[in-house]
Amino acid sequence: MTETQGSTPSRRALIGWGGAGLALGAAAAGGAVAMARTGNDVDPVAAETGGAVEFHGAHQAGIATPVQDRLHFAAFDVKTEDRAEFVQMLKDWTEAARRMTQGKAVGEGAYGGLAEAPPDDTGEALGLKPSRLTLTIGFGPSLFDKFGLRDKRPEALVDLPKFPGDNLDRTRTGGDLCVQACADDPQVAVHAIRNLARIGFGKVAIRWSQLGFGKTSSTTPDAQTPRNLMGFKDGTRNIAGTETDRLKKFVWVGDGDGQDWMTGGSYLVARRIRMNIETWDRTSLQEQEDVFGRDKREGAPVGKAKEHDAPFLKAMKPDAHVRLAHPDSNDGATILRRGYSFTDGTDGLGRLDAGLFFLAYQRDVRKGFIPVQRRLSAQDALNEYIQHVGSAVFAVPPGVRDSGDWWGRTLFSKEA
Amino acid sequence: MTETQGSTPSRRALIGWGGAGLALGAAAAGGAVAMARTGNDVDPVAAETGGAVEFHGAHQAGIATPVQDRLHFAAFDVKTEDRAEFVQMLKDWTEAARRMTQGKAVGEGAYGGLAEAPPDDTGEALGLKPSRLTLTIGFGPSLFDKFGLRDKRPEALVDLPKFPGDNLDRTRTGGDLCVQACADDPQVAVHAIRNLARIGFGKVAIRWSQLGFGKTSSTTPDAQTPRNLMGFKDGTRNIAGTETDRLKKFVWVGDGDGQDWMTGGSYLVARRIRMNIETWDRTSLQEQEDVFGRDKREGAPVGKAKEHDAPFLKAMKPDAHVRLAHPDSNDGATILRRGYSFTDGTDGLGRLDAGLFFLAYQRDVRKGFIPVQRRLSAQDALNEYIQHVGSAVFAVPPGVRDSGDWWGRTLFSKEA
Repeated sequence: MTETQGSTPSRRALIGWGGAGLALGAAAAGGAVAMARTGNDVDPVAAETGGAVEFHGAHQAGIATPVQDRLHFAAFDVKTEDRAEFVQMLKDWTEAARRMTQGKAVGEGAYGGLAEAPPDDTGEALGLKPSRLTLTIGFGPSLFDKFGLRDKRPEALVDLPKFPGDNLDRTRTGGDLCVQACADDPQVAVHAIRNLARIGFGKVAIRWSQLGFGKTSSTTPDAQTPRNLMGFKDGTRNIAGTETDRLKKFVWVGDGDGQDWMTGGSYLVARRIRMNIETWDRTSLQEQEDVFGRDKREGAPVGKAKEHDAPFLKAMKPDAHVRLAHPDSNDGATILRRGYSFTDGTDGLGRLDAGLFFLAYQRDVRKGFIPVQRRLSAQDALNEYIQHVGSAVFAVPPGVRDSGDWWGRTLFSKEA
Repeated sequence: MTETQGSTPSRRALIGWGGAGLALGAAAAGGAVAMARTGNDVDPVAAETGGAVEFHGAHQAGIATPVQDRLHFAAFDVKTEDRAEFVQMLKDWTEAARRMTQGKAVGEGAYGGLAEAPPDDTGEALGLKPSRLTLTIGFGPSLFDKFGLRDKRPEALVDLPKFPGDNLDRTRTGGDLCVQACADDPQVAVHAIRNLARIGFGKVAIRWSQLGFGKTSSTTPDAQTPRNLMGFKDGTRNIAGTETDRLKKFVWVGDGDGQDWMTGGSYLVARRIRMNIETWDRTSLQEQEDVFGRDKREGAPVGKAKEHDAPFLKAMKPDAHVRLAHPDSNDGATILRRGYSFTDGTDGLGRLDAGLFFLAYQRDVRKGFIPVQRRLSAQDALNEYIQHVGSAVFAVPPGVRDSGDWWGRTLFSKEA
């Protein structure tokens, strides 16, 4: 690879944003298609379930993209020491992701090949719609100890400190790489992760993975926030995918933020937060509402009528979750939330192993998750009912710009 | 309770099946509403996602009901020795199920109660549609060792034999009770199980639970069978919810089948089947198709063109899955399949813990699952790629007939 612009012009280069919008609109069978058009900050998206999200762009899809219903998330460890082999896998992954996000099987002749050959695609998504699948890659701190990348590690990609109350399970923590698969159909998300793992066989191995059965956040302006498993709406003032200014300020890595290869990227913090729901469920409604600082039915901040009404923090108890997590309590620290609810069977003690798989994107972890979590872990009334049991942080590189580009090129390409 | 007909007339008694259909149709906001009306054998169902399935009927909903997209399944152990307390819990569960399946919160004043009281409902389904939620209860063999029920244990509720290849995890096996929650929205299914567990606190405890993210079967006539995680359609000749004769012959317990309290009920076998998908994915397409006895893309039996074409078994390899599982190879043994795909993270060896949570309903386990599984476990070519790791069997009592009736009345009521 000499440069990102290959000889094949991208669909985006050919028809531009407006044209892409029309093309997507025409492709969606009936129903409204919402187009978020705010420069390069948001990918064009078919809002209707079943549509395809554009894979190429200045930023990776799956961050500012309207939140899909389901998640499959995987962290991988690198098994190869051969840089060229690893780079080839990233290119292969990119091509597979490009196809799968558009609803295509992996490989041109996925099922028409030689009888002796395993199929190029595992097949369980055959006949399913694209389901707004997005695939988002991230690089963990430990990756930078490999392949001579030490000098490329961004300062903003810090190892997370140990917070009070952390009870991290090593088997659900860390990872050299991650892929976040979001889709409205869980089979489409699971299929995508499984096929990337298959392509990576021998080069990478899954370290841990997490299914998220339901979204708990919205990046759509003014939409109602989906409830978490405590029955509450949380993170109601999330950054919308259309808020170009807030995305630029709080989410996207800018020129001069440090490592040039990260410009247009972001940083992802993943935390597996177990909820002690059986204890929570025996707590009075008043106590629950005091803990969050909002009412349960509507989701309005204390003393307010509606979910999106501006909160009056001083009306809340000093240890209320909303009050402590609010930017005004944290020197303006703001994150983009994209977490999902999970339930993974039982814990052997007759309780559901359920909670929130918290995902947050930010421009700098040191100015986003860390200061907020320092405050929450020390003071939040919610801590009585939750426990952080898994943790990881990743540098999420910028988007794949066109059909000649690939995941991680700005980091790995000698010429970049 | 003296009899099932309480003083309050049921909706069904008042308006009958046709009327109920109209009522459901009117309640569904736009779109087509399919009514399956074949006597008492199928509940009226709003086919549209979001609708409510009738809770009352001769049979429990969730068996012949068109298969919903998502599953949460829980097995419980009984903790109380007090029969009256247990029966009261069953009545409380019934009332909660009656409300939740119609899209209502548990309890009339779910959020309007005293501040000191925990809410009657955990709240995470507030604002969500009924999502075709069905809740189906079953009683395991071990329950009949309790509460003086030994004489009521049906002969057809046998303990499953150990099959060749079984590698059962005790923590995912058995249970005194089960509840199957199916819904098109997983949050609705998870909410239902969680609230029943909450109501049962102190009387029962969850033994194990399983989330199923995607259906793998259809009980809708002529519908395409959803693919399993091997990428294949399996169980394509499933019993449809409209096939009254096959349901009567193979699924519903009839008069004179043994214990009268089970008339109108069924028997459920649950098996957690782990798939070695990484091995499968490295197997040639020809080998995969030989193993199943059908083509991967269309799902047609060997030598046929379409999924629903009648198979010619002798054209398949002797150890092909379709051939061995077919009723013609098993003296006509036929089951109603209602299984779901699962993925529960990783297995610690870099592989996804994924597979099929197999659910099958039948009139008599000795004439349904057991003979079929004896043959499969001994000969099926698929055994190289799968392993049964969890197992349970339950007697599923008849339906709750009206608003005065309750789950298990025919078993527990002295007057029944």
